[in-house]
Amino acid sequence: MTEISQQENKKTKCIACKKPAIVNIMNPFCKECFIKHYERRVENLIKRHKLVRKGDKILVAVSGGKDSLSCANVLSKLREKFDFELGVLHIDVGIPECTNERTLNVVEGFCRERDITFHFYDLSGFLGGTTAEVAKVTRRPLCSLCGMLKRYVFNRFARENGYNKIATGHCADDVTRFFFKNWISRDFLWISKLKPITVSDHPKVVTRIRPLYEMLEAENLAYIQIQQIPIAGCSRCSYFLRRDKWFDILRLIDEHKKDFKFNFVKALEVAEISSKEKRDFGECANCGEPTDGDVCAVCRVKERYNRIKLSV
Amino acid sequence: MTEISQQENKKTKCIACKKPAIVNIMNPFCKECFIKHYERRVENLIKRHKLVRKGDKILVAVSGGKDSLSCANVLSKLREKFDFELGVLHIDVGIPECTNERTLNVVEGFCRERDITFHFYDLSGFLGGTTAEVAKVTRRPLCSLCGMLKRYVFNRFARENGYNKIATGHCADDVTRFFFKNWISRDFLWISKLKPITVSDHPKVVTRIRPLYEMLEAENLAYIQIQQIPIAGCSRCSYFLRRDKWFDILRLIDEHKKDFKFNFVKALEVAEISSKEKRDFGECANCGEPTDGDVCAVCRVKERYNRIKLSV
Repeated sequence: MTEISQQENKKTKCIACKKPAIVNIMNPFCKECFIKHYERRVENLIKRHKLVRKGDKILVAVSGGKDSLSCANVLSKLREKFDFELGVLHIDVGIPECTNERTLNVVEGFCRERDITFHFYDLSGFLGGTTAEVAKVTRRPLCSLCGMLKRYVFNRFARENGYNKIATGHCADDVTRFFFKNWISRDFLWISKLKPITVSDHPKVVTRIRPLYEMLEAENLAYIQIQQIPIAGCSRCSYFLRRDKWFDILRLIDEHKKDFKFNFVKALEVAEISSKEKRDFGECANCGEPTDGDVCAVCRVKERYNRIKLSV
Repeated sequence: MTEISQQENKKTKCIACKKPAIVNIMNPFCKECFIKHYERRVENLIKRHKLVRKGDKILVAVSGGKDSLSCANVLSKLREKFDFELGVLHIDVGIPECTNERTLNVVEGFCRERDITFHFYDLSGFLGGTTAEVAKVTRRPLCSLCGMLKRYVFNRFARENGYNKIATGHCADDVTRFFFKNWISRDFLWISKLKPITVSDHPKVVTRIRPLYEMLEAENLAYIQIQQIPIAGCSRCSYFLRRDKWFDILRLIDEHKKDFKFNFVKALEVAEISSKEKRDFGECANCGEPTDGDVCAVCRVKERYNRIKLSV
């Protein structure tokens, strides 16, 4: 009963109401209490770290997977209470294994049912070729190129459409994995920003919030499954993630200390890690988007791709 | 061939001289090159973090185990080069499984052979009863009581005998384990001091240095075994350490990323972790030793033990 059992477990009782438990990730819960408990934890994090203020316009980045849909779902339930506006942006990243008509339909349907403003952005051709072709020609790993493009578009789209915050579905599993990867490569500047909220440090950079910072991936999955919310995640991301050494390591730690990731991010929330390194943001000489160089990473890839294509 | 093979491995060559390798922990080495490489790494750390200055008087805390003896051995070889004086303090902690005539003979013999000033301190009876009895009566775990007593005595003994630095054999395995334990309990003040050198912040606290900060436990063992240095470690400590969950977790990580602990501490060396918490040191109202309370932990245990004994 690590995730959801199909049948209620007669022996294990819900920690809150003593009815038979159906999910047991950190503690056993029945369906109703699990949902209540999950949403209360997200709400408490939002309050504690002041992720949201009255009148905010928040854009949720939704791929169609369990994490981003969990994030959009909780936020949609909290709209009235915290008095903010909510929009969802789904990007077609131009890689058919990742985004396609099915993911588009899932995300659009999700927003329609909840009366959330739905935005769609088609990235295919944005770089002058398909994302897969650009990755191949410029010899850049596809997942890294896709991530870079999404960050670029989310920030730009949010700003140009009047959103003052971007919410992502990053959860405790992601945060812990990011911490270790960046710790080993000593990117303390990146780690210092790995908080439930990263406040904008440039007029063109939109503030990021991570409402699921303390939630486990397994909890997001249970949250989606119990409510029977249709999902359509990127099979490519999951595939590569499961081949990642850090994924294996964290799974092993889980087996020994099942509350490790939760406790780890709870500490990271309050840890003060500073970095001597300062990256000053300016604006890209080409597209005007924020960058710590003269030309932003997206324009550099674009330029490189076109140069190689012309020379062939 | 994770530690030392009894026979030279014909297939694996020493990374430095191409002779057959006999030890392969992070890289394959023959005996001579391993020792050279080990000592060079310690020397580089000492220089990089300025652990030692000309004219220092350094007291090494030696239990008789592989780590503390490795530390004392490297330092004894570097005495002339860095121009410092060296002493060793071996404490009889009053627990026969940990320190006894055998450990005393091993440490004394080690010092005699290398012309290192040897000091011995007998803790038995220091608290008014044997350490085991005090632990039982005051319901304090024996290992925690032993650690507390040793820290107290080392600091006091060093200061009263003109030593301006204490060196311990803490290695990358210890540092990583301490980091995780203290991170989860959010003791960032402790973590911020987990560096190759912890400079004294009170006139009665002696500066600590950790010359083996970057070395792995397995490397210390190989260093001792290759040189056939007799050791006599505390069987109790090893036993409890191997039952520690963090020990298992780090072993599992090792299997996936064999350079993890090394890279982890290399990052911790330069990480800037701060803590809002400040612990101001004063002096114990009873014994005058540094403490962040009115009465130090050792005097509190002593007092508690005598109170319970009298009331029985």
